[in-house]
Amino acid sequence: MYRSHNCGELNASHINTEVTLAGWVQKTRDKGFMNWVDLRDRYGITQLIFDESRTDKTVFELAKTLGREFVIQAKGTVIEREAKNANMATGDIEILVTELNILNSSITPPFTIEDETDGGEDIRMKYRYLDIRRNPVKNNLLFRHKVAMEVRKYLSDLDFCEVETPYLIKSTPEGARDFVVPSRMNEGQFYALPQSPQTFKQLLMVGGMDKYFQIVKCFRDEDLRADRQPEFTQIDCEMAFVEQEDILNVFEGLTRHLLKEIKGIEVEKFPRITYDYAMKMYGNDKPDIRFGMEFCPLTPEGGPFEPKGFPVFDDSEIVLAINVENCAHYTRKQLDELTDWVKRPQIGAKGLIYVRYNEDGTLKSSVDKFFNEEVLKNWAEKCNSKPGDLLLILSGPTDKTRTQLSALRMELANRLGLRKPNEFAPLWVVDFPLLELDEESGRYHAMHHPFTSPKPEDMQLLETNPGKVRANAYDMVLNGNEIGGGSIRIHDKATQQLMFKYLGFTPKQAEDQFGFLMNAFQYGAPPHGGLAFGLDRLVSILGGQETIRDFIAFPKNNSGRDVMIDAPSVIDDLQLKELKIKLDN
Amino acid sequence: MYRSHNCGELNASHINTEVTLAGWVQKTRDKGFMNWVDLRDRYGITQLIFDESRTDKTVFELAKTLGREFVIQAKGTVIEREAKNANMATGDIEILVTELNILNSSITPPFTIEDETDGGEDIRMKYRYLDIRRNPVKNNLLFRHKVAMEVRKYLSDLDFCEVETPYLIKSTPEGARDFVVPSRMNEGQFYALPQSPQTFKQLLMVGGMDKYFQIVKCFRDEDLRADRQPEFTQIDCEMAFVEQEDILNVFEGLTRHLLKEIKGIEVEKFPRITYDYAMKMYGNDKPDIRFGMEFCPLTPEGGPFEPKGFPVFDDSEIVLAINVENCAHYTRKQLDELTDWVKRPQIGAKGLIYVRYNEDGTLKSSVDKFFNEEVLKNWAEKCNSKPGDLLLILSGPTDKTRTQLSALRMELANRLGLRKPNEFAPLWVVDFPLLELDEESGRYHAMHHPFTSPKPEDMQLLETNPGKVRANAYDMVLNGNEIGGGSIRIHDKATQQLMFKYLGFTPKQAEDQFGFLMNAFQYGAPPHGGLAFGLDRLVSILGGQETIRDFIAFPKNNSGRDVMIDAPSVIDDLQLKELKIKLDN
Repeated sequence: MYRSHNCGELNASHINTEVTLAGWVQKTRDKGFMNWVDLRDRYGITQLIFDESRTDKTVFELAKTLGREFVIQAKGTVIEREAKNANMATGDIEILVTELNILNSSITPPFTIEDETDGGEDIRMKYRYLDIRRNPVKNNLLFRHKVAMEVRKYLSDLDFCEVETPYLIKSTPEGARDFVVPSRMNEGQFYALPQSPQTFKQLLMVGGMDKYFQIVKCFRDEDLRADRQPEFTQIDCEMAFVEQEDILNVFEGLTRHLLKEIKGIEVEKFPRITYDYAMKMYGNDKPDIRFGMEFCPLTPEGGPFEPKGFPVFDDSEIVLAINVENCAHYTRKQLDELTDWVKRPQIGAKGLIYVRYNEDGTLKSSVDKFFNEEVLKNWAEKCNSKPGDLLLILSGPTDKTRTQLSALRMELANRLGLRKPNEFAPLWVVDFPLLELDEESGRYHAMHHPFTSPKPEDMQLLETNPGKVRANAYDMVLNGNEIGGGSIRIHDKATQQLMFKYLGFTPKQAEDQFGFLMNAFQYGAPPHGGLAFGLDRLVSILGGQETIRDFIAFPKNNSGRDVMIDAPSVIDDLQLKELKIKLDN
Repeated sequence: MYRSHNCGELNASHINTEVTLAGWVQKTRDKGFMNWVDLRDRYGITQLIFDESRTDKTVFELAKTLGREFVIQAKGTVIEREAKNANMATGDIEILVTELNILNSSITPPFTIEDETDGGEDIRMKYRYLDIRRNPVKNNLLFRHKVAMEVRKYLSDLDFCEVETPYLIKSTPEGARDFVVPSRMNEGQFYALPQSPQTFKQLLMVGGMDKYFQIVKCFRDEDLRADRQPEFTQIDCEMAFVEQEDILNVFEGLTRHLLKEIKGIEVEKFPRITYDYAMKMYGNDKPDIRFGMEFCPLTPEGGPFEPKGFPVFDDSEIVLAINVENCAHYTRKQLDELTDWVKRPQIGAKGLIYVRYNEDGTLKSSVDKFFNEEVLKNWAEKCNSKPGDLLLILSGPTDKTRTQLSALRMELANRLGLRKPNEFAPLWVVDFPLLELDEESGRYHAMHHPFTSPKPEDMQLLETNPGKVRANAYDMVLNGNEIGGGSIRIHDKATQQLMFKYLGFTPKQAEDQFGFLMNAFQYGAPPHGGLAFGLDRLVSILGGQETIRDFIAFPKNNSGRDVMIDAPSVIDDLQLKELKIKLDN
């Protein structure tokens, strides 16, 4: 072993101990007759001291040659430090070095290895191995490991069995685009990398494994939006002989356990709201409920807006307000800026109406021309506004207006600092629609996936009003992010066949792609269901951060490239030949 | 929840409790007025009883319709069983059923769901979800989970951090054949699936992660020998600031922990032998040391065989014996059969010499014409034979003879029942050669991989006698299987460049393929090393079984096919088009 202790563990209790440390030179301070080196490893930093009067001359001179990021081994005695540093675990001591070995030198790194680095994203990705030396990235990776271990322990203790499902599976046109892998031994044929182990976990339930989980990589060949990765990690779970209630309880328990163990936070029983309610109150199926600002409809249920006279409202399907607390003081400039914000093409609102509920009880709006103060007061009451608050109002077609107001609600929360990274407000959204209409093709798609079971009481709507059929499907939402979702599955062949029919599969297509599953359902499939958490997202939220990339050791960029190893790359003609494929330029 | 208890937990303490169970019908016994059903789930079997005189008529009649593998839910009272079954955890009780729901029916399974099934390998693979219902397969999967959890706990407790490395990486011609993945977003380019996370774990060491592990899928597109899978699982580990000794200690500790926790077996400190010694004594770098039969050379070190006169020995580089205890009674027929066995083309020996050391002290051999009893006695002494033993002798060129005798040794051990599945004899084989000569190309290849460091004292042999250079490389061997292997790595750019040169890389090739790694070495790479265990093999050996396939939930066959889901398969022209590749028939 190159060391007797690591760089984070020595303290006053070790004074006079002979130790050997190894690590990286974080920085050096040379005062001529005295030379200090901060030695860093994963566990911390320890100060080394070289003193002309006490240190062997060769060692003293060698220490002067050390540069940043040199890898060294130092032997010496733990001594009390004169200038103690209370901010460092090892701040009470330093090492008076008697022996020094340079294990490896370093050229100058392309960015500083500090918590706040001068390196931009691109250069840090190219030299990711140097980026990982920085505390923020290193700590994220350690944090991810801790979360994954806690998940495994919790589920194992509940008799869940982690089963590895295959990575080389079959391509199906359903869902997102597959990554495929040409098979050399089966000419002209391809494997696909799994988008999720969905059918395998269901087959494990048919196989009687009862409770399954797996922390597993999944793959989607989609155009990468910001913060999406072509490979991502799921906590994938499935249980047999359960109803939705059982699944919600188990995984609420897991999440509560994580919040407690990892963050030291106890949370209440998770609220459960329906998809319809979420859309109505937040315009969003993954609402952030750390703050209020729920939607307040100014249009009466089902009826047209009253009083008439303001053409914009008269022509609107819905008029929706949010109450922004203590913001009546917003200046005209601030309000104009918000109006511009909602009118951006990404949001697409036509305009923004405001009502200031002044501290003195008067009300002032941008629609004073059309509505008297009594009407404004009535709106304020509807929205539980109090003097000092600001009402912001959007109107238009129902779905669009909700989406726009949802964006505005989140933007305001961000601006007002209401989305506190260390506050956690989980909830369940249940009763998702089974199907969603693809406006382009006019066809219905499975909102979750084709294995999700419809609510039995809605089955009869499948023919007449498919968009209204609710599924036994649920999402766990945390701080405005969907962190997990799942469903109770179909477990009989007839219903599964029917579902494929409604989704526009021919019987042959259904058989070719999912015959193995429907076949399995004939041999005594138990009722079952499950869910999957996105681990990358979960750890980033628990870590109080926005980007999943910071919690992935070697992420890819938005073009799906690993810029560090420079992949993907061209391959040998011989490889192509063996695979019996060629490029089609 | 569909059940209040599982099928393995009820016992006499539950008598008179109302319970609800759910599971599969294992079997039914109908005596007309009385009907028993064995109800099975992952946890066990519980007997249900339907009694004409005590059971509701509808329930009683419904029970008569149950077939094997039906999925049912049964409510009832735990009662004491008349005919107790001491072999079953639940053998003291049965459930007098009051309510019965058929949750799903089953058509007749293609093979019996019993510990000893009538299904052949092919049919069991096609219906793997049914095979998994059988105890032997189910228990193997639970066992695998337990091993993996113990590995994670042990390593986490030692500050190892599990880091997920990418699956979509860069193809390198070095080593085995890669599976490749065409990139849609990077036209004409391909990712490769990792054969191991080797370079990534080294970069994590450069990145200061200090102690890394990962239980991870790896991929090799090789022609599949029996019991090889195109995707397999590794316990992949790496440590910084360590020497070989440190690594051997840590992973010996892990293995000892597993043997103790999983098998309840305490093992001694692992023997360590060199590669040269292993080849000399066992003809094999992964010797099974659960039994003796070490090689005994009858040729003097370096010299020709004495006494002369037997042309076969006179022309041999080496004459090697093994002593088979208590087998002097082998009949001529048995010995002829062994002779035929070593002459099979797979073994390729020219013949087999035997010496019977009879119980009466006389010696009788197949070479009595050439050697008198005194010579035979001398051989017996050399080999520590005692009366009643049998000497078996092969001769020829050194390497070939060793390999042949190794095969014979293992064959005899199998026949004599010396390879006891519940006895565990781990050891380390160290000092592997750095390079091995590829006879076909006449070129040297890295025996382990090109990142393995040569022993410093052998460096000067690289130019003059490369085959003699020893590496800081080691294998852990258990019961005749290599279950893990690793090395101390090169951690400086110059040595790594030199190594690529010796392996026949041009500087450009080395730079194109591994430039990122050599570049990383310039920024303060610490000394580091590691190893990887084959998890599939490890669990199968710990489980006392031969085939890894039985420990994989969804294995592939020898053509790399998943016969259950029928993968790989042809894919859409549209998919090929998007990927800009075409088939090359």
